[in-house]
Amino acid sequence: MEYDGTDFCGYQSQGQGERTVQDVMGQALRVLCPRETIVLHAAGRTDTGVHALGQVLSFQTESAIPLERWAIALNSNLPRDLAIAKVEDAPHDFHARFSARSRTYGYLLWTRRTRSALWGRYSLHVRTALDLQAMRSVAALLVGTHDFAAYARTGEAGQPTVRDLQTLAVRPWTAERILITATATGFLRSMVRNMVGVLLAVGKGELPPSVAQDILDTRDRAQNPCPPAAPQGLFLWHVDY
Amino acid sequence: MEYDGTDFCGYQSQGQGERTVQDVMGQALRVLCPRETIVLHAAGRTDTGVHALGQVLSFQTESAIPLERWAIALNSNLPRDLAIAKVEDAPHDFHARFSARSRTYGYLLWTRRTRSALWGRYSLHVRTALDLQAMRSVAALLVGTHDFAAYARTGEAGQPTVRDLQTLAVRPWTAERILITATATGFLRSMVRNMVGVLLAVGKGELPPSVAQDILDTRDRAQNPCPPAAPQGLFLWHVDY
Repeated sequence: MEYDGTDFCGYQSQGQGERTVQDVMGQALRVLCPRETIVLHAAGRTDTGVHALGQVLSFQTESAIPLERWAIALNSNLPRDLAIAKVEDAPHDFHARFSARSRTYGYLLWTRRTRSALWGRYSLHVRTALDLQAMRSVAALLVGTHDFAAYARTGEAGQPTVRDLQTLAVRPWTAERILITATATGFLRSMVRNMVGVLLAVGKGELPPSVAQDILDTRDRAQNPCPPAAPQGLFLWHVDY
Repeated sequence: MEYDGTDFCGYQSQGQGERTVQDVMGQALRVLCPRETIVLHAAGRTDTGVHALGQVLSFQTESAIPLERWAIALNSNLPRDLAIAKVEDAPHDFHARFSARSRTYGYLLWTRRTRSALWGRYSLHVRTALDLQAMRSVAALLVGTHDFAAYARTGEAGQPTVRDLQTLAVRPWTAERILITATATGFLRSMVRNMVGVLLAVGKGELPPSVAQDILDTRDRAQNPCPPAAPQGLFLWHVDY
């Protein structure tokens, strides 16, 4: 599934009339399968304003709609900013969230001095020149199995905060953009945006690369001086099974 | 200048309260230069819904704003879907329209079977598999100096309709997109969209490639059976001086 997250209050249903991906998708399924109560599972519960190019959902249905008609049937019942790319049969025990081996997120920076009329929706504008080498030093410190509590969202106390960050890469992507990609079995809430926040502070020369380790060692979000990077640069890029 | 053409009634001022690029840009200039009447010249007068990545404007001003502040000052006074990429000094006789040596337009096709949640605004969705070789045969017939009256917008009678089409290229652009680019000294109104309309009919196998020549020979838009391709796939890509 793909979505432009701009006008969604994230993936997960809030039960409060907020427009979420889960609710909009649930409505489309109710139109197609009015007699079933379909439970949706998603690989990643993206936050408000975060986009997806490779979100994966799973659900069980008794519907007689043939497999090859599902994508078109769903897309006809979904708004323009939400689209199903592909529908496949899966084994009975497949679960979009629990069967996932890894998730990859991408964060896009727009680095031209002037803003973009087309990419403003899908990237963070950074006017300052960025030191890619310093950013890669940060990435090297963060990759691995660590307690990422200081890179989590505040107020999620009591949950396990150790994660295995498999890759964190910073690379130019066309002349005017930089793409940061991160892969892990699972991420803490807001973890990618918090890592990008530190990468940006170091890339701009405001903090030395070693600060990434210092922040990690505190295991406390309140000790992390960098705000999370804005949601509109973040994409759920790909999920591996 | 860049713009997302979705919410603009084209470049040129209609004088009727329609939202046009020229009017919005004129308002920003009036804020910066309240005592001057600035006349804007644009390289290409794009139609309603057409985007620009490389539009060029020229104007004369007595303003004391330093050159390096112009882009930021203008962008602060422009809406999110319109942006100035760069501002340069030009010789006194430079004219964005008349000094242009060639214009390049790009037309983007989204060719995955299912629609895109992100690219719907910036491409035409074509579900049918396209025969690129047949489309390239059409391109070869159209390149050169011809009377393109049958590829012009109807109701522009009396204007010269001979144009020199320098290149017309059809190429895959990432796995899910095809980019058609066209370069000429100048284009007739709607000419690129009319050429893409014929390219699509041939690419889908609805008409043989030779039809492009037959249509050209009629010199009459009314004899052209193909509708122009939708505006949201078209970008003013680049202007050469």
